Amino acid sequence: MLLRRCLALALAIALPVAVSADETQPARTPAPKELLAKSQPQEWRTPDPQNLLVMQLPQGRVLIELAPDFAPLHVTNIRTMAHEHYYDGLAITRVHDNFVTQWGDPASDDDNGDKSKLKPLGSAKEKLPPEYTRVYDAKLPFTPLKDGDFYAPEVGFSEGFPVARDQTHQQEWLTHCYGMVGVGRDIDPETGSGAELYAVIGQAPRALDRNIAVVGRVLQGMEFLSGLPRGTGPLGFYEKPEQHVMISSVRLASDIPAAQRPQIQVLRTDSATFAALVDAKRNRFDDFYRVPTGKVDVCSVTIPVRDAKTAH
Amino acid sequence: MLLRRCLALALAIALPVAVSADETQPARTPAPKELLAKSQPQEWRTPDPQNLLVMQLPQGRVLIELAPDFAPLHVTNIRTMAHEHYYDGLAITRVHDNFVTQWGDPASDDDNGDKSKLKPLGSAKEKLPPEYTRVYDAKLPFTPLKDGDFYAPEVGFSEGFPVARDQTHQQEWLTHCYGMVGVGRDIDPETGSGAELYAVIGQAPRALDRNIAVVGRVLQGMEFLSGLPRGTGPLGFYEKPEQHVMISSVRLASDIPAAQRPQIQVLRTDSATFAALVDAKRNRFDDFYRVPTGKVDVCSVTIPVRDAKTAH
Repeated sequence: MLLRRCLALALAIALPVAVSADETQPARTPAPKELLAKSQPQEWRTPDPQNLLVMQLPQGRVLIELAPDFAPLHVTNIRTMAHEHYYDGLAITRVHDNFVTQWGDPASDDDNGDKSKLKPLGSAKEKLPPEYTRVYDAKLPFTPLKDGDFYAPEVGFSEGFPVARDQTHQQEWLTHCYGMVGVGRDIDPETGSGAELYAVIGQAPRALDRNIAVVGRVLQGMEFLSGLPRGTGPLGFYEKPEQHVMISSVRLASDIPAAQRPQIQVLRTDSATFAALVDAKRNRFDDFYRVPTGKVDVCSVTIPVRDAKTAH
Repeated sequence: MLLRRCLALALAIALPVAVSADETQPARTPAPKELLAKSQPQEWRTPDPQNLLVMQLPQGRVLIELAPDFAPLHVTNIRTMAHEHYYDGLAITRVHDNFVTQWGDPASDDDNGDKSKLKPLGSAKEKLPPEYTRVYDAKLPFTPLKDGDFYAPEVGFSEGFPVARDQTHQQEWLTHCYGMVGVGRDIDPETGSGAELYAVIGQAPRALDRNIAVVGRVLQGMEFLSGLPRGTGPLGFYEKPEQHVMISSVRLASDIPAAQRPQIQVLRTDSATFAALVDAKRNRFDDFYRVPTGKVDVCSVTIPVRDAKTAH
């Protein structure tokens, strides 16, 4: 909505869904708030603490859910690095407008490329096979998006992640939507480790799909990655070390005492409420939106996350 | 590219295009830099100063090209407001993550809605008819994108703007891609004037197409609109006045002495070089990208802008 604030606040109060009196017009679609208010407790899941990364930045906390079904070796490596506090003290070194925010060891971006200054990876592996796609598995959860996709034969959602699949070539992969997290690498496909990660902050760069390992999705705190000044160096790297955003710590939730772990829930992408949200987005028609698209693309679908403490 | 900086810089030096020795692999696609280096002077155009808005923010200068062919009444109104210095001293009041950055009169967002505090619009109109689409005109320049579109029957580019059209319903409209500029309004479609504007800063919100007036595109300085802290109020409004980003001035380039006008050029979207760039993006295959998409969507196409002083 591109409304003035006073009006927007008034409209934020959920109105009952009314069937249009005018037969030629579609009925008003329910607002996400209305649909979420009717969701059932079992439609929400708590991310496995083994898959939940907690990244602390000066601006706030970023929560990332890892996707071991799609990049198991990278996820294992990232868990090892988080467990051994590898990421603590590293930094966001690149914010490339309409593309990615990237973080890792500032020494790896050093122009003189002095490898001796790199922080050791500890027990983690320095190189991993490219997990850009995975073998198609009919048993993997998959809720198809009936609208199809511009790039892939089929798209949908698997356990909270946007996914594309190609049954002809027996492949499936995570799609580069806003907030997806991938693994920076050099030219050689075997140079990714998870030591350098990025999050998508612009128009979905779907050309990266199947060309790089995607390991997860930002569940909360995306605004702390997207709302940073853009880097002015080539490819959006920050030109001065003082522009770097320091990472205080990255922890796996399972390494945090249970009582101190983030308490969040994610709406199941195989739930009735999620299907209703997608449908309301697809056919959006209300006081403001008068021309429904009748379609929704996989990267325009929001997957709701809520604070478990405020859940009813 | 998701590369480390030292490597990225090395690769930024254009390499000659080599046909792949392996017959089973496609040839390396040329980099944008290589294609632009071969562009001809007549492939570039200088935006009409009547259509070029120069917005000065503390962070830097934002250049917006207006699209009178698509929203003539709104563009006229915006020209009037710029000419009368209406925007000077207004502010960016909303940064809604993965959606829009919006600016205008902070008093219009005031919760108590005291209209007497609003800055007068001067000679500009307070309300305009909704120019959400325009009547299809075969004479309007249109370079089709052969890949088609997920949402519209047909998409392409018209004089530097991404455009959708529907010949069946005899309509065409500007698409909500990253960097496109539209007119904030209230619920009533006749409440837009151009006093409140927004720029798209996330995944293209194509559902807004045909529901709101789009008036132009950011040519330069997009990073000053996208790289701002996100608002924490409802719909991404800033909660405190001190968070507002003040607009020093907005001028129409034609109101600026010729010698002081921004000297920029935009690649013609009907040029051979533009077609080659789109094709290279569509089929991107190089050392890093090993799986070409074979397609490109209208909002993933970059329209190059250059400094006229450095043009060769």
